[in-house]
Amino acid sequence: MNHGPRSAARNRAALVAAAREIYAEHGLDAPLSAIARRAGVGQGSLYRHFPDRAAVVAVVLEENVRQIEQAATAEDACFEGILGVLTWHLTESAAFIAFLRADEASVRPDVRAHALALAGRVERALLRHLPGGRPPDARRPAAADDIMLAVAMVSGAATGPTRQERERRALKAWRLLGVEVGPVRPFEE
Amino acid sequence: MNHGPRSAARNRAALVAAAREIYAEHGLDAPLSAIARRAGVGQGSLYRHFPDRAAVVAVVLEENVRQIEQAATAEDACFEGILGVLTWHLTESAAFIAFLRADEASVRPDVRAHALALAGRVERALLRHLPGGRPPDARRPAAADDIMLAVAMVSGAATGPTRQERERRALKAWRLLGVEVGPVRPFEE
Repeated sequence: MNHGPRSAARNRAALVAAAREIYAEHGLDAPLSAIARRAGVGQGSLYRHFPDRAAVVAVVLEENVRQIEQAATAEDACFEGILGVLTWHLTESAAFIAFLRADEASVRPDVRAHALALAGRVERALLRHLPGGRPPDARRPAAADDIMLAVAMVSGAATGPTRQERERRALKAWRLLGVEVGPVRPFEE
Repeated sequence: MNHGPRSAARNRAALVAAAREIYAEHGLDAPLSAIARRAGVGQGSLYRHFPDRAAVVAVVLEENVRQIEQAATAEDACFEGILGVLTWHLTESAAFIAFLRADEASVRPDVRAHALALAGRVERALLRHLPGGRPPDARRPAAADDIMLAVAMVSGAATGPTRQERERRALKAWRLLGVEVGPVRPFEE
């Protein structure tokens, strides 16, 4: 057994990947033990990296938001493409939808503050490429206000037992809003 | 103390009214004891009428759906008016939004079946007055499919710390969908 730093980094990456899968399949209520089992690491290792469920969820959300930001800063970035990556996370990750509803009363204040910060990063990534461009534009403020409301609307529609069904409903929701969306996929460098 | 049937009916009505208020203010996680306190009845009386939280929620949902059905069968019923009553419940009752998301994996099968039945009743109430009317209409099947997706989208938008804020966001969401909505209010006979 190698407990050195390289092994620790490998275990952590395996745990994050497993958490993404488990949460996509079973939702946020899935037990942490299922994540350790999927990652092929011991419970001890899990708790060393992630003291509780909130810590795991925070890492998965951070990774989702980072992918959206990368899609927004890629050389060939366009609004439709970023929406495609966003829609992937909406349909793949129950955690991602839960954080979009963070302004509801029952959420803990610290979790809520973190969720609002993440939502702000998603909003800024989208606004970089909002059709109409960055220069002053009479329609711009309204459109900027509306984009996160539209994302919340699509997240409300993205329900269903399978990712495919959630994607079908999300794309129909974007269509009802008259918004074009690029390929629905994770961002890959 | 009068424990006769009339007193029991009064206690039950007081408990349902209190449950609606408490859930609107604090969400579904509010403790049952808060409902008993608000209704001014003892815990024993609460548990006699409602053995557990699910029983309370079921009664509140039933009452919401019944109001929407009454709005749809009223003499002067119109699509905009029914949507106004629906939107009232979306913004007033966290329980109502939760049941619209019932097809998510983590929900118990019996709760899910009940939620689907309630959603079906809401859909039928809306379809009675869908613009385009009941006769055969080429646009009709698509519109019928879309209406519950649109409701899910508006429920996704109807977040915020106060009912007023949730109403503001819900009405903006209907506007983005190009759907006209009547006065947002409960149905009163």
